[in-house]
Amino acid sequence: MTREELYQNIKKKKSFLCIGLDTDLKKIPRHLHKSSDPIFEFNKQIIDATHDLGVAYKPNVAFYESLGSAGWEALEKTADYLKNFKDIFTIADAKRGDIGNTSSMYAQAFFGLMDFDSITVAPYMGEDSVTPFLQYEGKWAILLALTSNKGANDFQTSCLTPNPSPKERGTEGIKLFEQVLKISQQWGNADNMMYVVGATQAQMLSGVRKIVPDHFLLVPGVGAQGGSLQEVAKYGMNKQCGLLVNSSRNIIYASDKEDFAAKARVEAMKMQKEMEKLLVNI
Amino acid sequence: MTREELYQNIKKKKSFLCIGLDTDLKKIPRHLHKSSDPIFEFNKQIIDATHDLGVAYKPNVAFYESLGSAGWEALEKTADYLKNFKDIFTIADAKRGDIGNTSSMYAQAFFGLMDFDSITVAPYMGEDSVTPFLQYEGKWAILLALTSNKGANDFQTSCLTPNPSPKERGTEGIKLFEQVLKISQQWGNADNMMYVVGATQAQMLSGVRKIVPDHFLLVPGVGAQGGSLQEVAKYGMNKQCGLLVNSSRNIIYASDKEDFAAKARVEAMKMQKEMEKLLVNI
Repeated sequence: MTREELYQNIKKKKSFLCIGLDTDLKKIPRHLHKSSDPIFEFNKQIIDATHDLGVAYKPNVAFYESLGSAGWEALEKTADYLKNFKDIFTIADAKRGDIGNTSSMYAQAFFGLMDFDSITVAPYMGEDSVTPFLQYEGKWAILLALTSNKGANDFQTSCLTPNPSPKERGTEGIKLFEQVLKISQQWGNADNMMYVVGATQAQMLSGVRKIVPDHFLLVPGVGAQGGSLQEVAKYGMNKQCGLLVNSSRNIIYASDKEDFAAKARVEAMKMQKEMEKLLVNI
Repeated sequence: MTREELYQNIKKKKSFLCIGLDTDLKKIPRHLHKSSDPIFEFNKQIIDATHDLGVAYKPNVAFYESLGSAGWEALEKTADYLKNFKDIFTIADAKRGDIGNTSSMYAQAFFGLMDFDSITVAPYMGEDSVTPFLQYEGKWAILLALTSNKGANDFQTSCLTPNPSPKERGTEGIKLFEQVLKISQQWGNADNMMYVVGATQAQMLSGVRKIVPDHFLLVPGVGAQGGSLQEVAKYGMNKQCGLLVNSSRNIIYASDKEDFAAKARVEAMKMQKEMEKLLVNI
């Protein structure tokens, strides 16, 4: 999917909602356990009930891997099912990244085999760990910049002076996540890269926008992790919206009864209605 | 496996060789394609031919994922097969890392379900992305510090001054990978954490040893990537050896004919013999 198509879908649906499929056997309704593939059955019903309200879906790959090859099959079926909806952007939330020939294998798994539109990528190993994901026409790498968890402050917000020259010493360094935003723009552009910026650090979004005015940002951390949608929109929105705000648990686990899909729709609609208000000028 | 057991295996086998199972359908001998599971069949024959020469095996998870659920099954079978060898340390080279509840799912996949001894973990997301891997008795997290690829110089070697106070300004910062080594010691210890340090930057190993004298280091990059075993031993060895040096392609693809396992043994033995000389004082 192109950036323009994503923008048009946002305008059409009046939503920049991404629904996180953190599907956990322990949390899905009990009656689904009778199904031959409870994980896929759960996802299918959630998608059917909400696909007009969200512009993106984001399976969290760890949840599928924790079930072994059966989980992997459920992930493949989910990716395949999502392809029925031409106005849905799909994200494999996998946080991959390795040396070049290995990242190429991950790209093959998520783009070649499963046909996701995008994958989340960890930047620690640098350029050749990211560029293999940028070789696929119409696909996206979503690079971790500033994440929504407590550990984000261990390294990502540390001040950094790259290759300091004697002249530069004594000047205050930029933060690691800002350096990730800057350096990675030499590898791709706003048409094949996005960035993860956590909603729990919404005030940082205006600084992020100074470095990457045009890129889409994938924003986790609204809801269960405590981030505010209004703050995210205030500091992070650009003229094409430029935001995909993720919500997982609040939506998909709104009920653990037979009405789970209907209740998920209610929660997704609450978010869509809030987003509609924030999109008035887009 | 405990650190003492790993050390005893190194002494017994006179080897600190880790064999990387980067198993690729395109590169394995053609005759194996007749097998019902060519990937597992290849791994099994490599393991059978070399298990007395190596102390560790490291399946590169990307190669299995690129084949979808069939690849995941081959990985599960390989992990299971390796458990037959009590003197083998197993490494899931997965470079995972996510927010706490998600990292717990990855730990469940690789420790709960597949019973690997260890997993490689990317440090970018900080403490809560790593600690879920440290909750399993007898298991290890192997944290990326300084990797063997070109992109290692994009962020890992950047100079960094964490939370600079006015007093600290003007002092030269430590490098990001050194900060990873330092900070992560608050999360675990030499009995449940190791670090990846690439052989292509062997001269950096003496600096690494000043920060982590006792930890085992997993060293990729010898062979295909150009690192030198002698240099790695010179700068990186400690009194319990403290090194696992990986070789993948040089060993497992020594031949693409029916003699592939025998030829892999020849290459593995060359490395073991070199290592034996370097271990004289251990």
